[in-house]
Amino acid sequence: MSSLSIKSPPAPAELPLSAKARRTVEQPISYLISEVMKNPRLINLAAGLVDAATLPVAECDAITRRIFADPARGRAALQYDTTLGLSSLRRALVEHLSKLEGLSPADMGLSADDLLVTTGSQQALYLVGDALIDPGDIVIAANPSYFVYTGALSSLGARVMTVPIDRDGMDVEAVGRLLGRIDAAGELGRVKFVYCTSFYQNPTGLTLSAERRPQLAEIVRSYSNRQRILVLEDAAYRELRYEGPAHRSIKSYDADNRFTVLSHTFSKPFAPGLKLGYTAMPADLLEAVLHQKGNHDFGSSNLTQHIALEAITDGSYGEHVHVLQRAYRAKRDVMLAALRRYMPAVPGLHWTHPDGGLYIWLTLPAGADTRRGGAMFNACVEAGVIYVPGDYCMQADETGNVPTNCLRLSFGQVEIGSIDPGIERLAAAVRRETRNSNSDSRVINMAVN
Amino acid sequence: MSSLSIKSPPAPAELPLSAKARRTVEQPISYLISEVMKNPRLINLAAGLVDAATLPVAECDAITRRIFADPARGRAALQYDTTLGLSSLRRALVEHLSKLEGLSPADMGLSADDLLVTTGSQQALYLVGDALIDPGDIVIAANPSYFVYTGALSSLGARVMTVPIDRDGMDVEAVGRLLGRIDAAGELGRVKFVYCTSFYQNPTGLTLSAERRPQLAEIVRSYSNRQRILVLEDAAYRELRYEGPAHRSIKSYDADNRFTVLSHTFSKPFAPGLKLGYTAMPADLLEAVLHQKGNHDFGSSNLTQHIALEAITDGSYGEHVHVLQRAYRAKRDVMLAALRRYMPAVPGLHWTHPDGGLYIWLTLPAGADTRRGGAMFNACVEAGVIYVPGDYCMQADETGNVPTNCLRLSFGQVEIGSIDPGIERLAAAVRRETRNSNSDSRVINMAVN
Repeated sequence: MSSLSIKSPPAPAELPLSAKARRTVEQPISYLISEVMKNPRLINLAAGLVDAATLPVAECDAITRRIFADPARGRAALQYDTTLGLSSLRRALVEHLSKLEGLSPADMGLSADDLLVTTGSQQALYLVGDALIDPGDIVIAANPSYFVYTGALSSLGARVMTVPIDRDGMDVEAVGRLLGRIDAAGELGRVKFVYCTSFYQNPTGLTLSAERRPQLAEIVRSYSNRQRILVLEDAAYRELRYEGPAHRSIKSYDADNRFTVLSHTFSKPFAPGLKLGYTAMPADLLEAVLHQKGNHDFGSSNLTQHIALEAITDGSYGEHVHVLQRAYRAKRDVMLAALRRYMPAVPGLHWTHPDGGLYIWLTLPAGADTRRGGAMFNACVEAGVIYVPGDYCMQADETGNVPTNCLRLSFGQVEIGSIDPGIERLAAAVRRETRNSNSDSRVINMAVN
Repeated sequence: MSSLSIKSPPAPAELPLSAKARRTVEQPISYLISEVMKNPRLINLAAGLVDAATLPVAECDAITRRIFADPARGRAALQYDTTLGLSSLRRALVEHLSKLEGLSPADMGLSADDLLVTTGSQQALYLVGDALIDPGDIVIAANPSYFVYTGALSSLGARVMTVPIDRDGMDVEAVGRLLGRIDAAGELGRVKFVYCTSFYQNPTGLTLSAERRPQLAEIVRSYSNRQRILVLEDAAYRELRYEGPAHRSIKSYDADNRFTVLSHTFSKPFAPGLKLGYTAMPADLLEAVLHQKGNHDFGSSNLTQHIALEAITDGSYGEHVHVLQRAYRAKRDVMLAALRRYMPAVPGLHWTHPDGGLYIWLTLPAGADTRRGGAMFNACVEAGVIYVPGDYCMQADETGNVPTNCLRLSFGQVEIGSIDPGIERLAAAVRRETRNSNSDSRVINMAVN
């Protein structure tokens, strides 16, 4: 529940917030952002922002000149378009998707009219939740998961139930077992979808394996006998691939376009400032989502849609993805090398080796405490480095416990030259914390014995 | 309730939509848009779109060249900014508001941090509803009102209760009487806000008089003894003023920034393609709305915010408003002249004379039927002109009846040369309809006698 700060002096009559507003908490990342604002010398390994140096300024300059040089085109870009989004952009995006998948649109049951353009992919994720979730409904996600979205799900009143994630991504057999237990408990009707970041997941960097993709599509289908359970596939980081296979989406195994929603964005592979995402979904869901979007804003910025269209069709988008892949691959490699160099050799201390995306997930020995306000977090801020505490990304287990021994690192925004010193500072704090948590464990054991 | 069309052949498992999605209907305007798409020779007096010829192409060309000529500025515009919106833009907008009001920001209890930038003002209106409304809550609006927003309110589960609107705008004494009746019925706790388009209302073109502005602020304050009731002031058309006084906002009478929300947009006075609005609101409401926006999209397009900032600060926004005022004044005058020229002199037939905005509201004699699919509507489409049926904008009275004898005309998008022939065609249909409805009345009277 949000804390209400009243600025003006007179005794206030209460502001009667909606149940949803009362369920909505501030995104925990806000605190970290304000820490960084206060202390600009902090090496920011927390931010999921993209690399500033690689932003496509020259490309967008050329594109906007072209758009405004043609008065008819310029006027079209400055007028309203439809709630669904610019049709020429949606056509270009279906072709783009088709290339990413190596499948024809028909093979995926998709046409341009099955795509919705939104204000970043976050809006699409939100609208899907809005169209499907009543308080008490269930969404299944990996633990950890992208915390901004699990926060939004909680605000909508969803119960987020989790399964583990491993080297091969979300544990889809665990999804099947969980659905079985939910069914046995008579609650299958409350399950609305499985949320899965299938490429270079935020926060772990882990990718769903080729084998698990059709399996997950089949699992939700097999539990959809009375009502449909969907997969909501978040592919925000898909094109930021530095090595390993270029997987097909889960959606590509849903030839009738009935059980999967596939969400992409321009923010990670091109520029966040355009604030555009595009999402393919089943026709009946799209209709419901479109009605919601009609109420929310009746269409995202049309000018930025014209810019995105030009970038896709003139080839600058594709070239820019290659620039980003080179730049982020180099930053990832520096971060992995620094982790090897500085992290102490302690049992239980390990980290992920992502093939793409912006994130590395670091696990400390059980008993370590990476939380905001804890000794290790404070030591890091003191030393001039900041990370995202892992508990921000985790749901509580049945006993209400959240693991506190993990953290998220990002090589997205940080300058390449700051990664090594950032990890060196972090490692010093980790070394102290693992020593302390070892002695803590001893203290606890002593108390028990 | 929306009709769900399933494209794919196999027998579908039901898609379990949320209660809100099941409450949400397609915006009625969608039908009119598709009519126009099918039939491009229609003279479109329905669309609330803005005039294409006046869109600021040269201005946006110069502005984007400037932004991208400076790499640091270009990168900033292509990166994420905060959920609240670009701080330099919010500072410029507080100054702009201050000029519009003729009051210092302090006199209105406003600083840049009391402003939220949204994806058009529609998103702000929606978010305010989202943060305050639970199903069954009450919102008070004029009858008729802006139908896109009353549709969104219904989707949120609000009961929209209405008061009349007259030459002086929303009947604020009627608001007081309605609040009194609601209080007597023990339902005052369900009233969340009064929605008022205070300048050149959509759909009537009517403006709230100077006298009624402080009155409305005082009425909500006087009923806010247990919990606050707000005024949500929609000022989308404010700067499209062609004659008459430049009123202060209702908000300007709320020196503590506690009871009023004031929403503006760039869509009407500059360019819809930027899709930006800005809204001042009480600090505690802003906090709740900001949390919702964090979940919806964590920030509108940053690039278009940089464009808007430049337009405000380099003076092109202000100059463009003058261009629009001249262009729309001319179109309004042509439409009013055509109405005088062609409309039959029939008792009960009259129309509004707006001082600004994009709309004229035409009232036919009681008994006339302007509805979609009716004889008059069909005759107009046949003759090549289209309008918005007035019932789209009206709430039902206690007996469930909606007046069917009104319609909305817009001189926004239509070319100036098409206004006269459009009104001529409309007048021919009106003449037939008023003859028919007179004979209908006679038939009914005969049956009764």
